[in-house]
Amino acid sequence: MARSRQEVLRILEEWGKRVLDQIEQGQEPVLEIPSRTLSNTIWDPVRRLLVLGPDKMKRRFLDLKESRKFMQTMLMLKLIVEAIRENVYPTIRDLYYNGKHTIMYVDPKGRTFKENTWDDQQESNAVIEDIEVATGLLREEMGLSADVKGKVVGPIIVKSRGFEIDATRLGDAALSLPPNPDELEIVKVEAEYVLVVEKDAIFQRLNREGYWKQENCILVTAKGMPDRATRRFVRRLSEEYKLPVYVLTDADPYGWYIYSVYRSGSIKLSYESDRLATPDAKFIGVTASDIIDYKISDEYVIAATDRDIKRAQELIRYPWFQSDAWRKEIQLFLKMKKKVEIEALSTHGLKFLHDYLKDKIHNKKWIE
Amino acid sequence: MARSRQEVLRILEEWGKRVLDQIEQGQEPVLEIPSRTLSNTIWDPVRRLLVLGPDKMKRRFLDLKESRKFMQTMLMLKLIVEAIRENVYPTIRDLYYNGKHTIMYVDPKGRTFKENTWDDQQESNAVIEDIEVATGLLREEMGLSADVKGKVVGPIIVKSRGFEIDATRLGDAALSLPPNPDELEIVKVEAEYVLVVEKDAIFQRLNREGYWKQENCILVTAKGMPDRATRRFVRRLSEEYKLPVYVLTDADPYGWYIYSVYRSGSIKLSYESDRLATPDAKFIGVTASDIIDYKISDEYVIAATDRDIKRAQELIRYPWFQSDAWRKEIQLFLKMKKKVEIEALSTHGLKFLHDYLKDKIHNKKWIE
Repeated sequence: MARSRQEVLRILEEWGKRVLDQIEQGQEPVLEIPSRTLSNTIWDPVRRLLVLGPDKMKRRFLDLKESRKFMQTMLMLKLIVEAIRENVYPTIRDLYYNGKHTIMYVDPKGRTFKENTWDDQQESNAVIEDIEVATGLLREEMGLSADVKGKVVGPIIVKSRGFEIDATRLGDAALSLPPNPDELEIVKVEAEYVLVVEKDAIFQRLNREGYWKQENCILVTAKGMPDRATRRFVRRLSEEYKLPVYVLTDADPYGWYIYSVYRSGSIKLSYESDRLATPDAKFIGVTASDIIDYKISDEYVIAATDRDIKRAQELIRYPWFQSDAWRKEIQLFLKMKKKVEIEALSTHGLKFLHDYLKDKIHNKKWIE
Repeated sequence: MARSRQEVLRILEEWGKRVLDQIEQGQEPVLEIPSRTLSNTIWDPVRRLLVLGPDKMKRRFLDLKESRKFMQTMLMLKLIVEAIRENVYPTIRDLYYNGKHTIMYVDPKGRTFKENTWDDQQESNAVIEDIEVATGLLREEMGLSADVKGKVVGPIIVKSRGFEIDATRLGDAALSLPPNPDELEIVKVEAEYVLVVEKDAIFQRLNREGYWKQENCILVTAKGMPDRATRRFVRRLSEEYKLPVYVLTDADPYGWYIYSVYRSGSIKLSYESDRLATPDAKFIGVTASDIIDYKISDEYVIAATDRDIKRAQELIRYPWFQSDAWRKEIQLFLKMKKKVEIEALSTHGLKFLHDYLKDKIHNKKWIE
């Protein structure tokens, strides 16, 4: 169940209070923060997730190399706590601007120095990530706003701020997810599965053509690379409702990587995979072998670029693409040097996409 | 009122039937299509719109230079008519793939020739645009699917396929517009105005912070450059409900151009401005002079790039930026060479954005 805004506030206040306690006890203030370095990013084969390893770093106030970061962390904590108390929902960019100012000080010899609290947003974002890993709270739970990419339709009823929304009653429109999907109460789910579609326009087609009604499934899209909120929402459907999750993307390394981000997490956000990834997500297509199996002739196929090839060579080394099925697909791609779009299935007729999806899902023709 | 799918089908069939009539009467089949060339794109100062001029072109079947395009137009018309009859909602890319094939023919001397119906999507898209201008139907009305960018919240009730959606009852979520906003029946509007926000994250903030409730307004975003559907939806609110439309973007030439696309149309889609543009839309900010008026100090301001400068020099020549207010703003930008983001207003506190918006709107501090 989602944490209330009051509970989130309490966790943040307590984290800050530990620093106060250290000071009151005459100790040096030290923050202990899980290390977000690449060397501490680990593939956990059992949980099938990219996760943070056990390394922690200590951020010491009295260490000259650390004191600036220490100050930044405290400043950001203050801004976030204030935002919650004042009931505002800033973006990370708002926090950057709100916290940016110049500190002037005069040293014992009378020399004046100037220092910015932070110079660019990279610095302020980094301390937000530190606060996330240190407190175990997602920024979404802290009430930070961000672009929302996720949309949903199908047999699910959710509740946001007391309002029930029935995603079967939206016609040709869709529900745009809230910035914090943990805030959504899932009232009722009567779906057989979740179909995650890479492309927004395909999502729209399937919605208008009644796909989810025929199949009794939930349709989700995040228009390309998913944002955190969509990943969290899909994860909740998998974890809390045990719904099978199927992913449909173009047949190219970019699409396949999108699938892996839903399933295993991204390297950049490995510290959140634990809550954002859906290790049971299955890939239904489009695969490289679909080009052969579904007889997609050469005139509908696109030549892979050097960049595609390079990307595929990277994918094949990732620990989460080590299954036989995936290695075979990526090797086939590297051999054929061909990619294909979801829409190419329309060469077999404008309704063929439905047949393809049903064939893949009901005949268990997925890979993982 | 929106045209029904049956009515759209009838218009398309009749357009096709004219060709048939020509053939049956022993005449050469000729299509008459308004010309979408730059020289036929005209700024109409009275309607304050970019529109197509009176030039028409004739596409003759028996003209060797034209016959391929003639065939493409007929093929696309067939695909669209079939999609409507079969109740599918293809994307323009689906149509490209569905219609792409190779025609082989043997000439009287026994030589074999091959010709693709179209080679790339540019060709198939172009004939869709031709059919739009020739029939006066938007592709959205023809049931073509596309990515949807637009979201809405606030005091408006719409109906899609019989389902009523009350956009005050979505909590922290939002309504993602349908691909064809003409299909939406607007049941009830009780808003004072429409606020169009460039940035999705700012839209989310304002929604969560209850801005539309305090102000009794409709919030809209299309995350940057608006898609056709969002523009059409905003236009309908302005035209059918006489709601004032205010636009909020970053203070840079890119943001200002986004405003002008909502208001006057884009050069590329000038043939649709008539139905997509909102000539009464007003720009409330962020302006270049806001940097001075709202005391946004240098550390929150971003230096304009050469590209920004070049873009501003283009804007100042567009006929729809010729008001005194806009010329003054763009000249000020070119002089200061500074741009600023909406979020920079947060230097005055995380709640300042609300004060800024209310000041601009209620004290009529807009430009147009």
